[in-house]
This record gives sequence, C-alpha cells and structure tokens, in this order.
Amino acid sequence: MNNINFRQIGTIYTPFNSLENMPIQPAAADGVKGTVEVFPEFTEGLSDLEGFSHIYLIFHLHLSTDYRLKVKPFLDDELRGVFSTRAPKRPNPIGISVVKLISVKNNILEVENLDIFNGTPLLDIKPAIPDMYNLENCKIGWIEKSKNTIKEKKSDGRYLWTKV
Amino acid sequence: MNNINFRQIGTIYTPFNSLENMPIQPAAADGVKGTVEVFPEFTEGLSDLEGFSHIYLIFHLHLSTDYRLKVKPFLDDELRGVFSTRAPKRPNPIGISVVKLISVKNNILEVENLDIFNGTPLLDIKPAIPDMYNLENCKIGWIEKSKNTIKEKKSDGRYLWTKV
Repeated sequence: MNNINFRQIGTIYTPFNSLENMPIQPAAADGVKGTVEVFPEFTEGLSDLEGFSHIYLIFHLHLSTDYRLKVKPFLDDELRGVFSTRAPKRPNPIGISVVKLISVKNNILEVENLDIFNGTPLLDIKPAIPDMYNLENCKIGWIEKSKNTIKEKKSDGRYLWTKV
Repeated sequence: MNNINFRQIGTIYTPFNSLENMPIQPAAADGVKGTVEVFPEFTEGLSDLEGFSHIYLIFHLHLSTDYRLKVKPFLDDELRGVFSTRAPKRPNPIGISVVKLISVKNNILEVENLDIFNGTPLLDIKPAIPDMYNLENCKIGWIEKSKNTIKEKKSDGRYLWTKV
C-alpha cells in the first residue's frame, strides 16, 4: 500500500484542551474563536485569502492513533460505517472544517466556529466557494433524523483519540 | 517540521487521462461519471454511506511534485496566494471534491460530477452535510468577478503536475 507523506504547515489554536464537551461540528461552534498560525515560510501563500468569508481548514487529527471501520457517532446510538461519519478514528485521520475567517495578519489567521482541538497540526487551507458545489436536494442519510440535535450535542470522549 | 504519514485507501477512476480540458471544479463537471474503488479491507467502513446524496472525496494530488506560494489560477490572470485557490501545486497536495453519490456496491462507489484525474489515490471519504456549515453571506474574494465562467473554463495544463 502506498505511503503518502505530508507535513505540518502550521498550528490551530482553540479553546479546547479537553475532548470532553467540544462542539462536534462547526455549526455547533458558533462564535468559538481561535487562531491559525501558519509557519512563516508559507506566509506568501496567504495572499488574497482575506477576501473570503469562509475557508476550509484541513488538519491532522493527531490524537487519533488507530481506526475503526464501524463507529458509534455522537448523533446516533447505532454503529455506522466510519466513512458515513466525521469520527476522528479513520484510516487516514484527516479533519476538515469550514470556519469563518475574521482577519489575516501576516502569518496569523483569526477564525471563528472552531470545532477543533487546541494545538492541532494544519495541513492545508482552501477557500470555501459554495457556488462550486451542486448541493441542491442534498440527502444526509442516517443524520437526517438527528440533525436538529447537532448544535446541542457535545463530544464526550467516546473517541478517545489517544490511549493515554 | 513534523512529517505525517497517510496511505492510499482506494483509487478514483475518471474519464480524464490528460490534464488538458479537465473541468476545474465539481460544479463544472455536471454529469461526469466515474467510480471509486475502495480497497476491500475498508469495505465495512462504507456502510450507511448510500443514504447520502453527496460525499467529500479527499485525495492525493499525486501528480503534483512541487509547490508554489503564488499561482495563476484558471479563473484569473493575476498571481494569487496558493491558499486562496484550489491549485494542485500546494505544500501538501491534498484535493477535496464534493461529488454526487449514485450507488454503493460492496467496495465500489459510482459517483458523478468528477473534476479529478484518472487513477488518483483516495485518502478519505466523508459525508457532505450542508446544514453543518454556516455559509450565509459567503464572500468569495477574487473569485467573485469570474464565478460565472467556472463552468466554461477547462484546465489547460498550466499546473503541469508532473515534470514528465
């Protein structure tokens, strides 16, 4: 199986130093502020980003040390295939969150709506461009019945990412 | 700088065997069909995915062998910071596309709206859940003035991913 090497290009700082009671989705993290520190060597790549109101943060779920193919999501009591969830225990622990971009100052981004653990390694940033996707008539499978609870639910350590 | 190891978990098959004339975004790839073959050892993780109409494919832009911090995007004639674009020549060549999920049969997904090169290594799959993001009043920076051309523009080898 091919190995693919990526590297940390920055760090995401958030108020969440514990996996207990973290919001489970960006929509549940309304107003949660934090900063993204991009390593100085990549600062030039941040040009033109400030015109975007929302960006994708792509990050390494670094506390996730193994994976399960079936997981019990926060929104459900049944085991679900991991690829139908955002659970961190994935074969490749890559996290994606759409966050609100407040400001860009040199290599520091101020962002909002963070559902990310403090100190998480950043892998990439992309602009969020809703018009580029065709999401009319979107069906959301097993999440449909519990989507109204997304904002209230908090993480509870179910996915203890690390064995420590 | 920390190195992070991921591995290929499957392969994305599309009609695009040349970087010339590929659609540049999923919204420009309306009706373009392909398949995702997830390696059999991960099949169980695909359970419950079929209820979703749209999924994120996260993949390795494997033809991208180096990066630039400023790039000239297909939609523009000016140099832009790479993180404000989806250009493949990124510090970590991770691609993300939201595609339409047509069917799931064992370890094979039939998908639509592909803007992806044939044979691209798959890293992860996540469900697309529009309600989880707060994209009201989204501003899209430098792309605003050219967004009406997204569907017509095709790639032109500008980003020759490989030096071959």
